[in-house]
Amino acid sequence: MGDFNESVVLDAIRRHTSGLSRVELAKATGLSAQTVSNITRRLLDQGVARESGKHSTGTGKPRTLLEIVPAARYAVGIHLDPAVITCILVDLLGTVVAQRSRRTPSGADTDGTVADMAASVAELLTEAGIDAERVLGLGIAAPGPIDAAAGSVVDPPELHGWGRYPLRDRLSEATGFPALLDKDVTAAVVAERWAGAARDSRNLLFFYLGTGSGMGLVVEDTVLRGVSGNAGEVGGLGAACSIHTLVDEAIALGVLGADFTVVDPADAQRGLRRLAELAAEGDRRAGGIIERLALRVGRGVCAAATLLDIDTIVFGGPAWQVLGEHMFPPIEAMVARSPFVKATHPTLVASTTLGENVAAIGAASLVLDQVLSVQPRSLLLG
Amino acid sequence: MGDFNESVVLDAIRRHTSGLSRVELAKATGLSAQTVSNITRRLLDQGVARESGKHSTGTGKPRTLLEIVPAARYAVGIHLDPAVITCILVDLLGTVVAQRSRRTPSGADTDGTVADMAASVAELLTEAGIDAERVLGLGIAAPGPIDAAAGSVVDPPELHGWGRYPLRDRLSEATGFPALLDKDVTAAVVAERWAGAARDSRNLLFFYLGTGSGMGLVVEDTVLRGVSGNAGEVGGLGAACSIHTLVDEAIALGVLGADFTVVDPADAQRGLRRLAELAAEGDRRAGGIIERLALRVGRGVCAAATLLDIDTIVFGGPAWQVLGEHMFPPIEAMVARSPFVKATHPTLVASTTLGENVAAIGAASLVLDQVLSVQPRSLLLG
Repeated sequence: MGDFNESVVLDAIRRHTSGLSRVELAKATGLSAQTVSNITRRLLDQGVARESGKHSTGTGKPRTLLEIVPAARYAVGIHLDPAVITCILVDLLGTVVAQRSRRTPSGADTDGTVADMAASVAELLTEAGIDAERVLGLGIAAPGPIDAAAGSVVDPPELHGWGRYPLRDRLSEATGFPALLDKDVTAAVVAERWAGAARDSRNLLFFYLGTGSGMGLVVEDTVLRGVSGNAGEVGGLGAACSIHTLVDEAIALGVLGADFTVVDPADAQRGLRRLAELAAEGDRRAGGIIERLALRVGRGVCAAATLLDIDTIVFGGPAWQVLGEHMFPPIEAMVARSPFVKATHPTLVASTTLGENVAAIGAASLVLDQVLSVQPRSLLLG
Repeated sequence: MGDFNESVVLDAIRRHTSGLSRVELAKATGLSAQTVSNITRRLLDQGVARESGKHSTGTGKPRTLLEIVPAARYAVGIHLDPAVITCILVDLLGTVVAQRSRRTPSGADTDGTVADMAASVAELLTEAGIDAERVLGLGIAAPGPIDAAAGSVVDPPELHGWGRYPLRDRLSEATGFPALLDKDVTAAVVAERWAGAARDSRNLLFFYLGTGSGMGLVVEDTVLRGVSGNAGEVGGLGAACSIHTLVDEAIALGVLGADFTVVDPADAQRGLRRLAELAAEGDRRAGGIIERLALRVGRGVCAAATLLDIDTIVFGGPAWQVLGEHMFPPIEAMVARSPFVKATHPTLVASTTLGENVAAIGAASLVLDQVLSVQPRSLLLG
């Protein structure tokens, strides 16, 4: 794995879940029949692809279809969130094979927490009966801003002790796997491309609503990371959309009682769930808080979709899991009304189908994306 | 021209204005010495590159340097602006060789105007003594939204008669050159990359302040066009930053007298110049109008630079030429104060050095970019 044309072929097979014949592969990739034949032989030998049946087109002899062998390789994902740490194991198609979550320790014992993470990864592999040799690597999703070169988070507002801690390298040492670190919002959009419903979109915005908020961006089929790996920050909007701010507002307005606090991210999450319950029960003030949040998010999303000329907008993240039902209708209406978003093409608005672990799935998908995706820029090194 | 590796070599030579030896080219591109040698021979044969002298490193024999021959090829750019039509001729480095401008006719005689444009192009070539065979093609910059596939503008608010008119194809027929059409803001950022001071930036935002406003975006060394070629729209901000709105405000507040109107884009441009004069003379209300505009633009630019993790922000366009002196200091201060922009890396803020014709230079640069730049995606077609 790693050759450019091989990645092109693998990518085409992966994206056609019903299988592709060698002739169709040559057509889809623009590669010669001979090149496709050589590459597919290599993929079959490695066990990464298999022949999945015959496809008859009516004329000529039936064509043998090729498909990915999902269990040929795996990737590990770890999402370090202020409220919860999630470890996940996915196969080559990004399907979750095993996962476990635990509350994020509030102390600053980073080395101890990394050792726990590594133990969780080992347990996941044992549980799933998967040999470490079939693991391509480990991806880490963390709140931004990050120092991409150092593989660490920078001054995280709710992750005391993790600032500038060499998280990527320590986790790589502790697990023995090559490791990558990226922002949670970037991981989320990569998850959506690998395993979500938006896998065919070349211009995709993922609005991640979690402890903090931000956007994962895919433009022209490329994950947008920016100068320092910190693309997707929504500035003041991120703070205005945080669970902390929302629950704080609900407490200040008396919508949530004195037994709710925002001292700890897990407490804030509890307040958020109660707020959603109140809204579902018809509490108009709770509904109003959520609706105002939806308007803020909707404005930001419309502005970004307009600026980047994007046609697919997906929402997800732990706070979206709780509030999405209430937020989706007003946001969808805003996008539909926006004179700029809809001017030149239709825009799809959707909730992720990947659930609350989207960032952890994304962390693992970072590895799949790095190892298996077409990376045209790598050519310049070749 | 067109081969991928050839583009890589040409791009490297172009970007090193002091010249590069074959050994340095191999190092810069990652290509083998043999490949570099074959390609440079081809470029020398075509007259596109030349040997520019020797470079002695102290050890070994001096190395022959290679440089672009600017006059080997040319590109034509046409900027269709509601106020003015500019035709321009640039060489291979994006340097302007000849240009002419005329006021945009207010009627809807599109065919007649296209014939005039074609006549201007022919005159520019004659004037500069350049054979049509050395012209790579013609680029058109127009206000968005555009229909990129059809090569036309869509419902332009101040360009009556041009909506859905097949501008690109008609100009190609009338001039005999292959033609491209892109948004004015996208053309401006391409100009900045080819001929401006920001040519080395891989993550660049060009805020174009003209009859309308918008952003041209380069992310990870790629010009961002979006799903429909309409990336860079700033939604409500664009309308709030238009010359029309600004002059309208100045008239409504009595800062500009009754002899100023915004009926015609050229009239509005006259009002704008007067507004800048008043501000320069110390008129506080005129200064206030411009400062409020600067704050709106600054907020939008900070949000976009944060979202895209960009490190270079350049301003230009006809209205910027008039107001930039007053707007630059407050905007620069806003970027410097922004907690998000500066969090992870320094950010350069600059005015374009390309002057009021930046979009026309950009239109021509679209051709250079298409024909000469490294376009990794084209590989998938190969």
